[in-house]
Amino acid sequence: MQVGIVGTGTVGRTLAQGFIQKGHDVVIGTRDVEALMARAEGDAMGNPPFAQWKAEHPEIGLTTQADAMAHGEIVVNATDGEGSEAALSAGGEHLTGTIVLDASNPIDHASGWPPSLFVANTDSLGERLQAAFPQARFVKVWNTMTAALMTDPGAIAGGDHTIPLCGNDAGAKAEVAAILESFGWRDILDLGDITAARAMEAHLLIWLRELGALDTAMFNTKVVR
Amino acid sequence: MQVGIVGTGTVGRTLAQGFIQKGHDVVIGTRDVEALMARAEGDAMGNPPFAQWKAEHPEIGLTTQADAMAHGEIVVNATDGEGSEAALSAGGEHLTGTIVLDASNPIDHASGWPPSLFVANTDSLGERLQAAFPQARFVKVWNTMTAALMTDPGAIAGGDHTIPLCGNDAGAKAEVAAILESFGWRDILDLGDITAARAMEAHLLIWLRELGALDTAMFNTKVVR
Repeated sequence: MQVGIVGTGTVGRTLAQGFIQKGHDVVIGTRDVEALMARAEGDAMGNPPFAQWKAEHPEIGLTTQADAMAHGEIVVNATDGEGSEAALSAGGEHLTGTIVLDASNPIDHASGWPPSLFVANTDSLGERLQAAFPQARFVKVWNTMTAALMTDPGAIAGGDHTIPLCGNDAGAKAEVAAILESFGWRDILDLGDITAARAMEAHLLIWLRELGALDTAMFNTKVVR
Repeated sequence: MQVGIVGTGTVGRTLAQGFIQKGHDVVIGTRDVEALMARAEGDAMGNPPFAQWKAEHPEIGLTTQADAMAHGEIVVNATDGEGSEAALSAGGEHLTGTIVLDASNPIDHASGWPPSLFVANTDSLGERLQAAFPQARFVKVWNTMTAALMTDPGAIAGGDHTIPLCGNDAGAKAEVAAILESFGWRDILDLGDITAARAMEAHLLIWLRELGALDTAMFNTKVVR
């Protein structure tokens, strides 16, 4: 499958590696390819300079945001929430009928630590993106956990935990569920239409407190019943 | 231990039964005892009329909100979030140094289904109550699950799931943790000071979507790590 990932941070890199390991044809899109490859420093998350990471993963393509969206039979939004709409606008014309796996969170970076959300409770980033790009089929997924678990649930507890998703398009959710199963996810919980993004994004507030209590990001929720 | 419970709905009744079963001295407080006992109908949650429930549990006392707070070595806030501050104001002078186990959620009942919260993200009901009653030692707990699990975690999955709590007073949290352990809770997760109520109350948004997906309230979160 052709996968276009928008976003070059931890989430974008980790998902690119996950999809490549399953034999998919993966490109990552960025605003300015030359600038990214020329950057000598790593990013704020402690990742190495992109060029160094790219050299270690020559099979992953690097292109513009628009070209990545054009490439993708499915597109992944792995951008920071504050920049998601602008990033997807770069190639919105390529999203007609396309499934967009939206891993973003509406983190308000000006709010201190732990951060609050710039949209919450009665609205969500997921809804805003679906409204901004009605031609796309958004599925909110992966935003509730650390990147290292997204395509490798078996990294903790033998994979015995839960991944939620939501979106307006049942067919898109079924396709995403099949992708998740290919990565080893067994408990995939459909929380409903895209308004459930209010819940999935609010989970970040809980996740950040759990992170503080546990002192590791290698945890996830299992919905026990 | 003397336990004063404020609130006569599902949560108040279920917690009263749970504490009684452990041998505690429990009274429930209500605004108007005579009116409650005279009410012929059940409540909106499908509970039987209070007088009928009370007759089946003669060992549980019924009194005013103020007297219940005076009675309690610990006090439980089992009121609806919209009425919590008014209810606790009835006996605020009895809360000096008292641990208040706050099980309330800030449900905006005017917001439709699933409801949104009347305070969220950058503030919380837990913080508002702690600020309104600075003489009390609030511990947010139990608001993240259905009443039937609060004092009976073993009702699902052999009790192998997680209960979070938060509050400003470490001693109060330790006492609450001991109470939870007496009910069989084994994974008690301290999420920090009372500002973590923003996270614990936002969990209601997730819980309601999970309720919709699972078609049962008998579920809870296990924080897998």
